[in-house]
Amino acid sequence: MAVKRKVGALFFDRFELLDIFGPLEMFGVVPDRFELITIGQRAASIASAQGPSVMIERTFADCGQLDVLLVPGGIGTRIEANNPALLQFIRGQYPGLSVLASICTGAGLLARAGVLDGRRATSNKKSFQWVVQQGPNTTWVPEARWVEDGNVFTSGGVAAGIDMALAVIARLESQDVAERAAQHTEYDWRRDASWDPFARLNNLV
Amino acid sequence: MAVKRKVGALFFDRFELLDIFGPLEMFGVVPDRFELITIGQRAASIASAQGPSVMIERTFADCGQLDVLLVPGGIGTRIEANNPALLQFIRGQYPGLSVLASICTGAGLLARAGVLDGRRATSNKKSFQWVVQQGPNTTWVPEARWVEDGNVFTSGGVAAGIDMALAVIARLESQDVAERAAQHTEYDWRRDASWDPFARLNNLV
Repeated sequence: MAVKRKVGALFFDRFELLDIFGPLEMFGVVPDRFELITIGQRAASIASAQGPSVMIERTFADCGQLDVLLVPGGIGTRIEANNPALLQFIRGQYPGLSVLASICTGAGLLARAGVLDGRRATSNKKSFQWVVQQGPNTTWVPEARWVEDGNVFTSGGVAAGIDMALAVIARLESQDVAERAAQHTEYDWRRDASWDPFARLNNLV
Repeated sequence: MAVKRKVGALFFDRFELLDIFGPLEMFGVVPDRFELITIGQRAASIASAQGPSVMIERTFADCGQLDVLLVPGGIGTRIEANNPALLQFIRGQYPGLSVLASICTGAGLLARAGVLDGRRATSNKKSFQWVVQQGPNTTWVPEARWVEDGNVFTSGGVAAGIDMALAVIARLESQDVAERAAQHTEYDWRRDASWDPFARLNNLV
Protein backbone atom coordinates (compact mmCIF):
# COMPACT_ATOMS: atom_id res chain seq x y z
CA MET A 1 0.00 0.00 0.00
CA ALA A 2 1.32 3.41 -0.95
CA VAL A 3 2.28 5.89 1.76
CA LYS A 4 -0.43 8.49 2.38
CA ARG A 5 0.27 12.14 1.67
CA LYS A 6 0.42 14.27 4.82
CA VAL A 7 -2.04 17.17 4.56
CA GLY A 8 -1.34 19.76 7.24
CA ALA A 9 -3.94 22.34 8.19
CA LEU A 10 -2.46 25.47 9.76
CA PHE A 11 -4.55 26.95 12.58
CA PHE A 12 -4.24 30.29 14.37
CA ASP A 13 -6.55 32.38 16.56
CA ARG A 14 -9.64 33.54 14.69
CA PHE A 15 -9.16 31.44 11.56
CA GLU A 16 -12.24 31.23 9.29
CA LEU A 17 -14.11 27.96 9.91
CA LEU A 18 -15.13 26.97 6.40
CA ASP A 19 -11.83 28.12 4.83
CA ILE A 20 -10.14 25.13 6.36
CA PHE A 21 -12.89 22.56 7.06
CA GLY A 22 -14.19 22.71 3.48
CA PRO A 23 -10.84 21.63 1.98
CA LEU A 24 -10.18 19.18 4.86
CA GLU A 25 -13.48 17.45 4.08
CA MET A 26 -12.45 16.90 0.48
CA PHE A 27 -9.04 15.44 1.38
CA GLY A 28 -10.69 13.56 4.25
CA VAL A 29 -13.10 11.63 2.03
CA VAL A 30 -10.08 10.10 0.26
CA PRO A 31 -8.67 8.50 3.43
CA ASP A 32 -6.64 5.86 1.64
CA ARG A 33 -4.53 8.59 0.00
CA PHE A 34 -4.46 11.50 2.44
CA GLU A 35 -3.80 11.83 6.17
CA LEU A 36 -5.02 15.03 7.87
CA ILE A 37 -2.97 16.78 10.56
CA THR A 38 -4.05 19.85 12.55
CA ILE A 39 -1.11 22.14 13.28
CA GLY A 40 -0.69 25.19 15.52
CA GLN A 41 2.07 27.17 17.13
CA ARG A 42 1.33 25.49 20.47
CA ALA A 43 -0.40 22.20 21.38
CA ALA A 44 -3.74 23.53 22.57
CA SER A 45 -7.18 24.25 21.26
CA ILE A 46 -7.57 27.21 18.90
CA ALA A 47 -10.78 29.22 18.47
CA SER A 48 -12.13 30.17 15.06
CA ALA A 49 -13.37 33.64 14.13
CA GLN A 50 -16.89 32.19 14.37
CA GLY A 51 -16.35 30.66 17.83
CA PRO A 52 -15.89 26.87 17.66
CA SER A 53 -12.43 25.59 18.63
CA VAL A 54 -10.33 22.84 17.10
CA MET A 55 -7.79 20.60 18.85
CA ILE A 56 -4.19 20.94 17.68
CA GLU A 57 -2.41 17.62 17.08
CA ARG A 58 1.05 18.85 16.12
CA THR A 59 3.07 22.02 16.64
CA PHE A 60 5.34 23.86 14.22
CA ALA A 61 8.24 22.16 15.99
CA ASP A 62 7.09 18.55 15.82
CA CYS A 63 4.89 18.12 12.75
CA GLY A 64 7.74 17.14 10.42
CA GLN A 65 7.76 17.69 6.68
CA LEU A 66 4.28 17.80 5.13
CA ASP A 67 3.24 17.03 1.56
CA VAL A 68 0.41 19.57 1.42
CA LEU A 69 0.07 22.65 3.63
CA LEU A 70 -3.30 24.44 3.79
CA VAL A 71 -3.33 28.02 5.08
CA PRO A 72 -6.77 29.50 5.84
CA GLY A 73 -7.81 33.11 6.12
CA GLY A 74 -10.01 34.80 8.66
CA ILE A 75 -9.73 38.02 10.60
CA GLY A 76 -6.84 36.47 12.59
CA THR A 77 -4.57 36.89 9.56
CA ARG A 78 -4.25 40.58 10.43
CA ILE A 79 -2.27 39.55 13.55
CA GLU A 80 -0.48 36.53 12.07
CA ALA A 81 0.91 38.59 9.19
CA ASN A 82 3.32 39.90 11.85
CA ASN A 83 4.01 36.58 13.58
CA PRO A 84 7.59 35.58 12.69
CA ALA A 85 7.16 32.00 13.99
CA LEU A 86 4.17 31.33 11.74
CA LEU A 87 5.78 32.95 8.69
CA GLN A 88 8.97 30.97 9.31
CA PHE A 89 6.93 27.76 9.55
CA ILE A 90 5.43 28.37 6.09
CA ARG A 91 8.84 29.33 4.67
CA GLY A 92 10.50 26.28 6.22
CA GLN A 93 7.91 23.79 4.97
CA TYR A 94 7.74 25.24 1.48
CA PRO A 95 10.78 23.65 -0.24
CA GLY A 96 9.62 20.14 0.70
CA LEU A 97 5.94 20.50 -0.15
CA SER A 98 4.17 18.96 -3.13
CA VAL A 99 1.54 21.69 -2.85
CA LEU A 100 1.23 24.85 -0.77
CA ALA A 101 -2.35 26.18 -0.80
CA SER A 102 -4.04 29.18 0.78
CA ILE A 103 -7.71 30.01 1.13
CA CYS A 104 -9.12 33.53 1.30
CA THR A 105 -6.84 36.01 3.12
CA GLY A 106 -4.44 33.16 3.90
CA ALA A 107 -2.74 34.39 0.72
CA GLY A 108 -1.62 37.41 2.75
CA LEU A 109 0.32 35.06 5.04
CA LEU A 110 1.94 33.30 2.08
CA ALA A 111 2.91 36.70 0.70
CA ARG A 112 4.41 37.82 4.02
CA ALA A 113 6.36 34.55 4.17
CA GLY A 114 7.88 35.52 0.82
CA VAL A 115 6.71 32.46 -1.07
CA LEU A 116 4.50 34.44 -3.47
CA ASP A 117 7.32 36.67 -4.72
CA GLY A 118 7.31 36.57 -8.51
CA ARG A 119 4.14 34.47 -8.61
CA ARG A 120 0.52 34.96 -9.68
CA ALA A 121 -2.03 34.62 -6.88
CA THR A 122 -5.56 35.49 -5.78
CA SER A 123 -7.48 35.92 -2.54
CA ASN A 124 -10.78 36.87 -0.95
CA LYS A 125 -12.48 39.58 -3.00
CA LYS A 126 -13.87 41.56 -0.09
CA SER A 127 -10.47 42.04 1.58
CA PHE A 128 -8.46 42.09 -1.63
CA GLN A 129 -6.70 45.39 -0.96
CA TRP A 130 -5.32 44.23 2.40
CA VAL A 131 -3.92 41.08 0.80
CA VAL A 132 -2.37 43.00 -2.11
CA GLN A 133 -0.54 45.19 0.39
CA GLN A 134 1.10 42.09 1.91
CA GLY A 135 2.69 41.08 -1.39
CA PRO A 136 4.18 43.93 -3.46
CA ASN A 137 6.18 41.45 -5.57
CA THR A 138 3.19 39.30 -6.50
CA THR A 139 0.95 39.55 -9.58
CA TRP A 140 -2.48 39.64 -7.95
CA VAL A 141 -5.35 38.27 -10.06
CA PRO A 142 -8.62 39.96 -9.03
CA GLU A 143 -10.97 37.72 -11.03
CA ALA A 144 -10.31 34.03 -10.31
CA ARG A 145 -11.91 31.24 -8.29
CA TRP A 146 -8.38 30.04 -7.69
CA VAL A 147 -4.91 30.48 -9.22
CA GLU A 148 -2.26 27.79 -9.73
CA ASP A 149 1.33 28.91 -10.17
CA GLY A 150 3.70 25.97 -10.09
CA ASN A 151 2.99 24.12 -6.86
CA VAL A 152 1.37 27.11 -5.15
CA PHE A 153 -2.43 27.33 -5.19
CA THR A 154 -4.33 30.35 -3.87
CA SER A 155 -8.13 30.55 -3.74
CA GLY A 156 -10.78 33.23 -3.47
CA GLY A 157 -12.82 33.67 -0.31
CA VAL A 158 -14.05 30.90 1.99
CA ALA A 159 -16.11 28.57 -0.23
CA ALA A 160 -13.70 29.00 -3.16
CA GLY A 161 -11.25 26.90 -1.18
CA ILE A 162 -13.40 23.80 -1.72
CA ASP A 163 -13.18 24.14 -5.51
CA MET A 164 -9.43 24.64 -5.21
CA ALA A 165 -9.00 21.65 -2.89
CA LEU A 166 -10.64 19.40 -5.49
CA ALA A 167 -8.26 20.81 -8.12
CA VAL A 168 -5.32 19.98 -5.83
CA ILE A 169 -6.65 16.43 -5.41
CA ALA A 170 -6.99 16.15 -9.20
CA ARG A 171 -3.38 17.31 -9.60
CA LEU A 172 -1.92 15.00 -6.93
CA GLU A 173 -4.10 11.97 -7.56
CA SER A 174 -6.40 12.07 -10.60
CA GLN A 175 -9.43 13.83 -12.01
CA ASP A 176 -11.44 10.70 -11.24
CA VAL A 177 -10.51 10.73 -7.55
CA ALA A 178 -11.50 14.41 -7.33
CA GLU A 179 -14.81 13.80 -9.12
CA ARG A 180 -15.64 10.99 -6.70
CA ALA A 181 -14.86 13.21 -3.69
CA ALA A 182 -17.21 15.88 -5.06
CA GLN A 183 -19.97 13.38 -5.74
CA HIS A 184 -19.55 11.72 -2.35
CA THR A 185 -20.05 15.06 -0.61
CA GLU A 186 -22.85 16.18 -2.97
CA TYR A 187 -20.71 19.18 -3.85
CA ASP A 188 -21.42 21.14 -7.02
CA TRP A 189 -17.76 21.53 -8.00
CA ARG A 190 -16.90 24.62 -10.01
CA ARG A 191 -14.16 23.11 -12.14
CA ASP A 192 -13.33 26.36 -13.96
CA ALA A 193 -10.65 28.33 -12.09
CA SER A 194 -11.61 31.50 -13.99
CA TRP A 195 -15.27 31.46 -12.82
CA ASP A 196 -15.66 34.31 -10.36
CA PRO A 197 -18.82 36.40 -10.03
CA PHE A 198 -17.54 37.79 -6.72
CA ALA A 199 -14.85 39.94 -8.33
CA ARG A 200 -17.57 41.97 -10.02
CA LEU A 201 -19.81 42.03 -6.94
CA ASN A 202 -16.89 43.63 -5.09
CA ASN A 203 -16.09 46.07 -7.92
CA LEU A 204 -12.67 44.56 -8.64
CA VAL A 205 -13.33 44.24 -12.39
CA MET B 1 -30.13 45.31 20.70
CA ALA B 2 -32.14 42.18 20.02
CA VAL B 3 -31.19 38.95 21.76
CA LYS B 4 -29.17 36.62 19.54
CA ARG B 5 -30.60 33.28 18.50
CA LYS B 6 -28.75 30.32 20.03
CA VAL B 7 -27.57 27.95 17.30
CA GLY B 8 -26.50 24.63 18.79
CA ALA B 9 -24.33 22.22 16.84
CA LEU B 10 -24.64 18.61 17.98
CA PHE B 11 -21.38 16.64 17.93
CA PHE B 12 -20.76 12.92 18.35
CA ASP B 13 -17.85 10.59 17.54
CA ARG B 14 -17.14 10.41 13.81
CA PHE B 15 -19.41 13.24 12.73
CA GLU B 16 -18.84 14.48 9.16
CA LEU B 17 -16.68 17.63 9.19
CA LEU B 18 -18.31 19.72 6.47
CA ASP B 19 -21.86 18.68 7.44
CA ILE B 20 -21.61 20.87 10.49
CA PHE B 21 -18.89 23.43 9.76
CA GLY B 22 -20.51 24.49 6.48
CA PRO B 23 -23.78 25.54 8.15
CA LEU B 24 -21.92 26.95 11.20
CA GLU B 25 -19.92 29.23 8.89
CA MET B 26 -23.11 30.67 7.42
CA PHE B 27 -24.69 31.37 10.81
CA GLY B 28 -21.30 32.53 12.07
CA VAL B 29 -20.91 35.31 9.50
CA VAL B 30 -24.08 36.90 10.90
CA PRO B 31 -22.64 37.33 14.42
CA ASP B 32 -25.02 40.10 15.44
CA ARG B 33 -27.98 37.71 15.06
CA PHE B 34 -26.66 34.23 15.87
CA GLU B 35 -24.54 32.77 18.66
CA LEU B 36 -22.88 29.40 17.99
CA ILE B 37 -22.66 26.70 20.67
CA THR B 38 -20.88 23.34 20.31
CA ILE B 39 -22.73 20.59 22.19
CA GLY B 40 -21.83 17.00 23.07
CA GLN B 41 -22.86 14.30 25.48
CA ARG B 42 -19.80 15.04 27.61
CA ALA B 43 -17.55 18.10 27.94
CA ALA B 44 -14.53 16.91 26.00
CA SER B 45 -13.12 17.02 22.52
CA ILE B 46 -14.86 14.94 19.85
CA ALA B 47 -13.17 13.56 16.74
CA SER B 48 -14.73 13.80 13.29
CA ALA B 49 -14.93 10.94 10.81
CA GLN B 50 -12.12 12.68 8.93
CA GLY B 51 -9.87 13.07 12.00
CA PRO B 52 -9.85 16.66 13.30
CA SER B 53 -11.44 17.16 16.74
CA VAL B 54 -13.66 19.96 18.00
CA MET B 55 -13.93 21.27 21.58
CA ILE B 56 -17.33 20.84 23.23
CA GLU B 57 -18.58 23.94 25.06
CA ARG B 58 -21.85 22.63 26.52
CA THR B 59 -23.28 19.22 27.36
CA PHE B 60 -26.79 17.90 26.84
CA ALA B 61 -27.39 18.64 30.53
CA ASP B 62 -26.24 22.26 30.64
CA CYS B 63 -26.82 23.82 27.22
CA GLY B 64 -30.33 25.08 27.99
CA GLN B 65 -33.03 25.65 25.39
CA LEU B 66 -31.70 26.41 21.92
CA ASP B 67 -33.37 28.30 19.09
CA VAL B 68 -31.78 26.27 16.29
CA LEU B 69 -30.38 22.75 16.59
CA LEU B 70 -28.13 21.41 13.81
CA VAL B 71 -27.65 17.64 13.60
CA PRO B 72 -24.89 16.46 11.26
CA GLY B 73 -24.40 13.08 9.66
CA GLY B 74 -21.28 11.00 9.28
CA ILE B 75 -20.50 7.36 9.81
CA GLY B 76 -20.94 7.89 13.58
CA THR B 77 -24.72 8.10 13.08
CA ARG B 78 -24.77 4.29 12.80
CA ILE B 79 -23.84 4.14 16.51
CA GLU B 80 -25.78 7.20 17.70
CA ALA B 81 -29.03 5.91 16.19
CA ASN B 82 -29.01 3.59 19.22
CA ASN B 83 -27.87 6.17 21.80
CA PRO B 84 -30.90 6.94 24.03
CA ALA B 85 -29.24 10.01 25.61
CA LEU B 86 -28.65 11.66 22.24
CA LEU B 87 -32.11 10.81 20.91
CA GLN B 88 -33.68 12.13 24.13
CA PHE B 89 -31.68 15.35 23.78
CA ILE B 90 -33.13 15.96 20.30
CA ARG B 91 -36.62 15.04 21.49
CA GLY B 92 -36.34 17.29 24.54
CA GLN B 93 -35.09 20.32 22.62
CA TYR B 94 -37.59 19.98 19.82
CA PRO B 95 -40.74 21.61 21.29
CA GLY B 96 -38.84 24.83 22.11
CA LEU B 97 -36.88 25.17 18.86
CA SER B 98 -37.55 27.71 16.13
CA VAL B 99 -35.83 25.35 13.67
CA LEU B 100 -34.54 21.79 13.90
CA ALA B 101 -32.23 20.98 10.99
CA SER B 102 -30.30 17.88 9.96
CA ILE B 103 -27.60 17.44 7.37
CA CYS B 104 -26.89 14.23 5.47
CA THR B 105 -27.53 11.08 7.55
CA GLY B 106 -28.32 13.26 10.57
CA ALA B 107 -31.90 12.80 9.33
CA GLY B 108 -31.63 9.20 10.56
CA LEU B 109 -31.10 10.53 14.09
CA LEU B 110 -34.09 12.86 13.82
CA ALA B 111 -36.17 9.91 12.62
CA ARG B 112 -35.03 7.70 15.50
CA ALA B 113 -35.88 10.52 17.92
CA GLY B 114 -39.41 10.39 16.51
CA VAL B 115 -39.55 13.99 15.35
CA LEU B 116 -39.93 13.07 11.65
CA ASP B 117 -43.05 10.98 12.18
CA GLY B 118 -45.70 12.17 9.73
CA ARG B 119 -43.28 14.56 8.04
CA ARG B 120 -41.55 14.84 4.67
CA ALA B 121 -37.76 14.67 4.81
CA THR B 122 -34.62 13.97 2.80
CA SER B 123 -31.05 12.88 3.44
CA ASN B 124 -27.73 11.93 1.89
CA LYS B 125 -28.30 10.15 -1.42
CA LYS B 126 -25.53 7.61 -1.06
CA SER B 127 -26.80 6.24 2.26
CA PHE B 128 -30.47 6.87 1.56
CA GLN B 129 -31.64 3.34 2.29
CA TRP B 130 -30.11 3.29 5.76
CA VAL B 131 -31.83 6.57 6.62
CA VAL B 132 -35.20 5.40 5.25
CA GLN B 133 -34.99 2.37 7.53
CA GLN B 134 -34.69 4.66 10.58
CA GLY B 135 -38.02 6.38 9.84
CA PRO B 136 -40.86 4.09 8.71
CA ASN B 137 -43.45 6.81 9.45
CA THR B 138 -41.72 9.50 7.36
CA THR B 139 -42.35 10.41 3.71
CA TRP B 140 -38.81 10.27 2.34
CA VAL B 141 -38.10 12.54 -0.65
CA PRO B 142 -35.29 11.04 -2.76
CA GLU B 143 -34.78 14.04 -5.06
CA ALA B 144 -34.27 17.26 -3.07
CA ARG B 145 -31.41 19.51 -2.06
CA TRP B 146 -33.32 20.05 1.16
CA VAL B 147 -36.88 19.64 2.46
CA GLU B 148 -38.76 22.03 4.76
CA ASP B 149 -41.73 20.66 6.67
CA GLY B 150 -42.98 23.13 9.23
CA ASN B 151 -39.97 24.04 11.37
CA VAL B 152 -38.00 20.91 10.48
CA PHE B 153 -35.40 21.17 7.73
CA THR B 154 -33.50 18.15 6.39
CA SER B 155 -30.78 18.38 3.74
CA GLY B 156 -29.06 16.11 1.30
CA GLY B 157 -25.47 15.01 1.80
CA VAL B 158 -22.66 17.13 3.24
CA ALA B 159 -22.48 20.24 1.02
CA ALA B 160 -26.28 20.39 0.66
CA GLY B 161 -26.35 21.50 4.28
CA ILE B 162 -24.83 24.85 3.32
CA ASP B 163 -27.68 25.61 0.91
CA MET B 164 -30.19 24.59 3.58
CA ALA B 165 -28.49 26.70 6.26
CA LEU B 166 -28.87 29.79 4.08
CA ALA B 167 -32.57 28.92 3.61
CA VAL B 168 -32.92 28.69 7.41
CA ILE B 169 -31.26 32.10 7.78
CA ALA B 170 -33.64 33.51 5.14
CA ARG B 171 -36.59 32.08 7.08
CA LEU B 172 -35.47 33.31 10.51
CA GLU B 173 -34.00 36.65 9.45
CA SER B 174 -34.54 37.70 5.83
CA GLN B 175 -33.60 36.82 2.27
CA ASP B 176 -31.26 39.80 2.27
CA VAL B 177 -29.33 38.60 5.33
CA ALA B 178 -28.94 35.16 3.72
CA GLU B 179 -27.80 36.67 0.40
CA ARG B 180 -25.18 38.73 2.19
CA ALA B 181 -23.89 35.68 4.08
CA ALA B 182 -23.53 33.82 0.76
CA GLN B 183 -21.76 36.72 -0.91
CA HIS B 184 -19.48 37.29 2.09
CA THR B 185 -18.31 33.66 1.91
CA GLU B 186 -18.16 33.62 -1.92
CA TYR B 187 -20.62 30.76 -1.85
CA ASP B 188 -22.59 29.90 -4.99
CA TRP B 189 -25.90 29.38 -3.16
CA ARG B 190 -28.29 26.91 -4.78
CA ARG B 191 -31.53 28.62 -3.79
CA ASP B 192 -33.78 25.96 -5.33
CA ALA B 193 -34.59 23.22 -2.81
CA SER B 194 -35.64 20.87 -5.63
CA TRP B 195 -32.26 21.02 -7.43
CA ASP B 196 -30.59 17.65 -6.92
CA PRO B 197 -28.40 15.96 -9.53
CA PHE B 198 -27.15 13.55 -6.87
CA ALA B 199 -30.42 11.62 -6.66
CA ARG B 200 -29.94 10.51 -10.26
CA LEU B 201 -26.22 9.85 -9.83
CA ASN B 202 -27.16 7.44 -7.03
CA ASN B 203 -29.99 5.83 -9.02
CA LEU B 204 -32.73 7.05 -6.66
CA VAL B 205 -34.85 8.52 -9.47
